[in-house]
Amino acid sequence: MRSVFLALALASSAAAATPFSADTLSHAQSLRQHAMSSDHAFEVVESLTTEVGPRLAGSDGDARAVAWAKARFEAMGFDHVRLEPVTIPHWERGYADARVTLPFPQPLVITALGNSVGTPEGGIEAPIVRFATLADLEAADPAEVKGKLAFIDHRMERFKDGRGYGPVVKARGQGAVAAAKKGAAGLLLRSVSTSAHRFAHTGVMRYVDGVAKIPAVAISGPDADQLTRMLQRDPKIQVKLELEAMDHGETTSYNVIGEITGQSQPEEIVLIGAHLDSWDEGTGALDDGAGVGIVTAAAGHILALKQRPARTIRVVLYAAEEIGLIGAKAYRDAHQDTLAQHYVAAEADFGAGPIYRFDTRVNEQALPAMTALQQQLAPLGVERGHNQTWGGPDVSVLPPLGVPVAGLAMDGTDYFDYHHTPDDTLDKIRPEAIQQSAAVYTLFAWLMANAEAELRPIPMPQP
Amino acid sequence: MRSVFLALALASSAAAATPFSADTLSHAQSLRQHAMSSDHAFEVVESLTTEVGPRLAGSDGDARAVAWAKARFEAMGFDHVRLEPVTIPHWERGYADARVTLPFPQPLVITALGNSVGTPEGGIEAPIVRFATLADLEAADPAEVKGKLAFIDHRMERFKDGRGYGPVVKARGQGAVAAAKKGAAGLLLRSVSTSAHRFAHTGVMRYVDGVAKIPAVAISGPDADQLTRMLQRDPKIQVKLELEAMDHGETTSYNVIGEITGQSQPEEIVLIGAHLDSWDEGTGALDDGAGVGIVTAAAGHILALKQRPARTIRVVLYAAEEIGLIGAKAYRDAHQDTLAQHYVAAEADFGAGPIYRFDTRVNEQALPAMTALQQQLAPLGVERGHNQTWGGPDVSVLPPLGVPVAGLAMDGTDYFDYHHTPDDTLDKIRPEAIQQSAAVYTLFAWLMANAEAELRPIPMPQP
Ligand SMILES: [Zn+2]
Ligand SMILES: [Zn+2]
Ligand SMILES: [Zn+2]
Ligand SMILES: [Zn+2]
Repeated sequence: MRSVFLALALASSAAAATPFSADTLSHAQSLRQHAMSSDHAFEVVESLTTEVGPRLAGSDGDARAVAWAKARFEAMGFDHVRLEPVTIPHWERGYADARVTLPFPQPLVITALGNSVGTPEGGIEAPIVRFATLADLEAADPAEVKGKLAFIDHRMERFKDGRGYGPVVKARGQGAVAAAKKGAAGLLLRSVSTSAHRFAHTGVMRYVDGVAKIPAVAISGPDADQLTRMLQRDPKIQVKLELEAMDHGETTSYNVIGEITGQSQPEEIVLIGAHLDSWDEGTGALDDGAGVGIVTAAAGHILALKQRPARTIRVVLYAAEEIGLIGAKAYRDAHQDTLAQHYVAAEADFGAGPIYRFDTRVNEQALPAMTALQQQLAPLGVERGHNQTWGGPDVSVLPPLGVPVAGLAMDGTDYFDYHHTPDDTLDKIRPEAIQQSAAVYTLFAWLMANAEAELRPIPMPQP
Repeated sequence: MRSVFLALALASSAAAATPFSADTLSHAQSLRQHAMSSDHAFEVVESLTTEVGPRLAGSDGDARAVAWAKARFEAMGFDHVRLEPVTIPHWERGYADARVTLPFPQPLVITALGNSVGTPEGGIEAPIVRFATLADLEAADPAEVKGKLAFIDHRMERFKDGRGYGPVVKARGQGAVAAAKKGAAGLLLRSVSTSAHRFAHTGVMRYVDGVAKIPAVAISGPDADQLTRMLQRDPKIQVKLELEAMDHGETTSYNVIGEITGQSQPEEIVLIGAHLDSWDEGTGALDDGAGVGIVTAAAGHILALKQRPARTIRVVLYAAEEIGLIGAKAYRDAHQDTLAQHYVAAEADFGAGPIYRFDTRVNEQALPAMTALQQQLAPLGVERGHNQTWGGPDVSVLPPLGVPVAGLAMDGTDYFDYHHTPDDTLDKIRPEAIQQSAAVYTLFAWLMANAEAELRPIPMPQP
């Protein structure tokens, strides 16, 4: 009797220390086993990248991706599958060519940055002027820049967590404006890339009102090095640039949404997301077909249980992330009345994994509960991280409105080798990595949808 | 006295066992030290790839490469620097585009094979039919192929010695003819490549009289896998192909030659060569800027000695290797009267090294001398190989006319990752690898130019 009593007391004490019921944990264990022997996530990316391929927001591929996602969600048996319209700009790349004309004529491997204007008919030909960083360009004497192609040669550093991206990508977004302010004719950006290969990496750039719109392209790392070698021999290197970028005005894309309706608290939402759009030159396998596969498979694994979670699990495949989080902002605005019922949100948008760390942005009182959740992820190799995440690009617009978020940090060591290039294709995804990531998202969604813990109000950085 | 006598006796006995004088060996030692602390070879490739870049036979880049080589040879102080004219066809790539149109529309990464015809204005659009190998295409029922794009999906295997190339490259040379014989509209070749990246690898293809000339392109490995995945879903995959390949007729290029005139047997030639032309999409760094750097630096190191070698060392930078060994055949024909005085020939055309093995094709009586030579290379990590080499592509036309050849085998593990792609750029060359290769060529040329050994007549395979 005594040992039975003790066991019950321990069980009860364990229950008190955890936000999860024994039943929830028991299902978590079978979900973990199921997910770690499932190829579902890989199959989803394989289907999307093969049958749809590139899906730049606004393109035919984008429309096909939306239809693909809706059909798949319906076939899987999600509840309340729907398309939520998003008004987006439709930019198209067209023809692009760049070559050194003097004194060492040869072609360059380039790609237009997303949103760039084209060149006038016949292209532009101008000397180049090199800057090590955006800051150096901003500090330059306009007389040095006027009429030239400003060449920003900032090399990205490789890290597991991708933190080399932030300091360099600023030049992609703002470089053309900074160059135009000095009178430049165009921008040549060293690709935001860790790759040793000759791919140019695209990505969105921005103009601002009142500053001339000049064409902006990325050149591959080897080409940036080549230009630098040329400049060491001769300060007068002339480049000809022809871009045919087309602005097709506004069109409509869609956030694609499917749900597993909660059993006892259906109005409360655990949101797991990824973005459905991609850049146009690769097939968007790592960015963000992998995320689509991970969150779709995670919800699919839970759907296969006989039991429904307490809260609703909502899968959101965002539109038009690449061209400025447009689907994310549309979701936020369309759902403003129910954001208070969003229990937590997380997005997978950093490749295929594996996931190595669980970050959060929740109330400090909930940190023990988050540790309890991480302990369920620990068998998959996931450690506890910090409480300062923004949860992924599309869900990062939610914490300012009070929504708790989680970040399931993926190993991104190689992510920027492929990011936004033609080389972002299915073969770059390791099946065992995406399987683990999908398993982590499965457990995360299941446990969050059943957790007994108050995650609000969330801490926010002080302005 | 006795010990001096013994030392002399030993020295004399050593001399008898070796084809090299003590003076030759002493210079070999200082050459080895000098070469292994020199960046000359890398500097040569850096100069060629930066200042000239791509140099497709017949192009402006080719003409600039010839001028570059002549100027460099003259500046280095080579004897008898000269250009020997070679009549070549001038093919130009132009625009190329391919895309799946049905049922999964998306672009493919392709490159025209060298010598391919273009498509009719507006391109061709046809279903594809897949074959695992050229042999499978050759065995196919013409009804299966007629009017379609024949897709040969033969994957190359990776080996240090590049032996995966031969079995696969046949489809590049002969695939279009085999396909046209079955009535195909065009050829889609899986790139002859070991790369995991999305580059298409060009290379020369051939037509034959009496068979329709159909356009022939290589597609990247990831694109070949993508087509195969599509075919698993739907046997009717339609591809549109647009090629603008241009045949500019005949023009003149040049074999560039420089020498170190021999001291005592100047009429005897030790030929070290590489090819100066390259494909047009990369800068021809590994293929064959590295070879140009290796043989140029090797001769340069010897030129820096106060002493001249016994035989003449001739550096030949061949024209138009890529489009069919045209410079090699021109050299053979122009020098037919002196081929009997060619002591030995070797070509560096397999990347930057390092060199790991010394192969030969010499008379069996000379094998001990070759082993003695290899012992001088052993400190650089070079082992003795076989006696069946052809010496490299351009010098392979010489053994049928009795000329002994040597092959200094380079580690080509990664060579076919870059071969004939835009990604063949300077950054792929490891300075320490090309330094070692240049040191090996330095010793090889010096020792051959001073060897006391008869290398003829050479063994040839029986027909
Ligand atoms: Zn993304
Ligand atoms: Zn992206
Ligand atoms: Zn070659
Ligand atoms: Zn080649």
